[in-house]
Amino acid sequence: MNIYDESLKYHEELRGKFQIKSNCNISNEKDLTLAYTPGVAEPCREIHKNPDAAYTYTRKWNTVAVISDGTAVLGLGDIGPLASLPVMEGKSILFKEFADVDAFPLVLNTQNVDEIVETIVRISPSLGGINLEDISAPRCFEIENKLKEKLDIPVFHDDQHGTAIVVLAGLINALKLVNKKIENTKIVINGAGSAGTAICKLLVSFGSKNILMCDKSGIINKDIDNLNPSMKELSEITNKANIKGDLKSALVNADIFIGVSAPNLVTKEMAETMNKDAIIFAMANPIPEIFPDVAKEAGVKIIGTGRSDFPNQVNNVLAFPGIFRGALDVRARDINEEMKIAAANAIANSVNDTDLNYDFIIPKAFDLNVQKAVANAVKEAAIKSGISKIYK
Amino acid sequence: MNIYDESLKYHEELRGKFQIKSNCNISNEKDLTLAYTPGVAEPCREIHKNPDAAYTYTRKWNTVAVISDGTAVLGLGDIGPLASLPVMEGKSILFKEFADVDAFPLVLNTQNVDEIVETIVRISPSLGGINLEDISAPRCFEIENKLKEKLDIPVFHDDQHGTAIVVLAGLINALKLVNKKIENTKIVINGAGSAGTAICKLLVSFGSKNILMCDKSGIINKDIDNLNPSMKELSEITNKANIKGDLKSALVNADIFIGVSAPNLVTKEMAETMNKDAIIFAMANPIPEIFPDVAKEAGVKIIGTGRSDFPNQVNNVLAFPGIFRGALDVRARDINEEMKIAAANAIANSVNDTDLNYDFIIPKAFDLNVQKAVANAVKEAAIKSGISKIYK
Repeated sequence: MNIYDESLKYHEELRGKFQIKSNCNISNEKDLTLAYTPGVAEPCREIHKNPDAAYTYTRKWNTVAVISDGTAVLGLGDIGPLASLPVMEGKSILFKEFADVDAFPLVLNTQNVDEIVETIVRISPSLGGINLEDISAPRCFEIENKLKEKLDIPVFHDDQHGTAIVVLAGLINALKLVNKKIENTKIVINGAGSAGTAICKLLVSFGSKNILMCDKSGIINKDIDNLNPSMKELSEITNKANIKGDLKSALVNADIFIGVSAPNLVTKEMAETMNKDAIIFAMANPIPEIFPDVAKEAGVKIIGTGRSDFPNQVNNVLAFPGIFRGALDVRARDINEEMKIAAANAIANSVNDTDLNYDFIIPKAFDLNVQKAVANAVKEAAIKSGISKIYK
Repeated sequence: MNIYDESLKYHEELRGKFQIKSNCNISNEKDLTLAYTPGVAEPCREIHKNPDAAYTYTRKWNTVAVISDGTAVLGLGDIGPLASLPVMEGKSILFKEFADVDAFPLVLNTQNVDEIVETIVRISPSLGGINLEDISAPRCFEIENKLKEKLDIPVFHDDQHGTAIVVLAGLINALKLVNKKIENTKIVINGAGSAGTAICKLLVSFGSKNILMCDKSGIINKDIDNLNPSMKELSEITNKANIKGDLKSALVNADIFIGVSAPNLVTKEMAETMNKDAIIFAMANPIPEIFPDVAKEAGVKIIGTGRSDFPNQVNNVLAFPGIFRGALDVRARDINEEMKIAAANAIANSVNDTDLNYDFIIPKAFDLNVQKAVANAVKEAAIKSGISKIYK
């Protein structure tokens, strides 16, 4: 049986990957009076007097909604909210399994940016955080930005930032191995969707000075007409020399290629034009922009993909559970750049120096110590950057 | 320690009465590929082809949101969404404990009827049903009616219908004991809010011909100016003789008094003017409209209250878990009058004829056999009335 048929059978047997668990034991009248009426009136009164008490008397402190409109689901595209639900349930249980965060899925039957924003704002009182998922670019940028403005709980679009954080983690270790500094490297990113855009911005935050960002029409530059706001911003923070050309020309003398685009876009010949000790993250799924064996033949030193059957898998699950664990534990009002970089460093440092090698720059997804290290680093960064509501 | 302090301590120790439980065991790469990428793409594709498949491959079939805007919380009134959260968490775990329904709380920070409706419609794809809670009248009627029009999953405002169903159950048994038929009785209901209105309508559906509905200004009648739409409807389905007067005058020669109003509104003298073998449900909490001992002294035969420390407690928990269990199991597109009456009969019949007496007309809340009986009766009624999506 192939993985798809097997997964279908698995889902049919489970009839849903999550359920609710009661923390109470309700077996007599007394239990009922404590957990429900009339006793429950007292925590209600306390929260009414002091809204912060919701973090003491309810599950708000640990509750995250995994929210999607189903417009950019896996490799499937715009399949709508209902059909995206299996992904959101999967994400929810990964939160629980990897970091004991209580997450549940909510899929929205609107694709209008303002309606999505106002809906999420309206349901936010019961939530400690919001994980946006599989929302198409450039809408995802606007939705996330507006929510960050309106809410004082963490909002995190994992397709953007989860991917960016794990790529940065891999890059930190890869650069250590080839003994280059990020500020001296030429980086090419192909794909200006949610992941590509977030990777670009996080690398800039981390100190990158020379990025060429490409999409289907080639290198993004200031002279292209009708750029959307997100692409316009990319044209301003990358490509200072305002170079024009295609992906092939961009790759000449590049140190790093990051692909979040489509299968087989980078040939062996193109890879051969990159600098010595080149690094590639080819994350198109399931067929990468270039296969590891081809890249190695072309002289590329380190290659990562999105797949678990090749070395150096870029897997978001290394980031999002621990990030929310850390953010929730210190009641961070946001997940900021400092916290993302702290998470990337924590992931990178989870690979021991003695284990670190070209085929092991990113830790394994099932190493729960990584989640703990990420959570701790994120907590510290939140406190240090002044956005924890309880630790000053 | 009194019950309120004890409940506060209880809530503080729990830090939330519910959590998420994963149905999967994610402990290696294989598990991850089945529950998440790439395997999860296949159930997504199946649901995209056939939306009904969401009931096979996700938890939609068993998921209910407990939704409130915090405008009419217990006896506390309009305390806002956040402060209502302990009640909604309590309700959610009762769903789980009593009928294995997976319910989670969502509180909304809007009190606008249309905004509440559109928000709930937008988040509905992941849900199998919606339980509205503690929303003030008459807004609750409009919200429920609009949602019933727009959605094809069950929508149920428990403060209305849960209370009405348990009152009807008690009444069925009480009438049996005093050997009266509902169509021959005079019924007075005091309190025209959510519960009183729903009780009135359900009793009419059940065959009642003579109801006087009272509120603070006395008997509701057609000649009152500026009645809101809900009160106007009540004035049309009750009080055929268009009688005017106060509660005291209404009670003369009444067979049944149902109070969902305020403490101590019915004196011993008023109760004495009721007919022989009178029945009273005095459900103001925690102080009833008349205490059981006073009512008995006045010659009232059967009295129920909202309290667990007196006989005949009218407790919604007898109804809502089993009702949703039944509705979800047959994928009912609504919870209609037939299902409500079936639930009331099932609750009434859960008291054995040998046990039935003036002080035991309503079964105990902790009798899980009642939930099963309610669920089965509701299923049958849904199928019979043609609103099950899977059984014709």
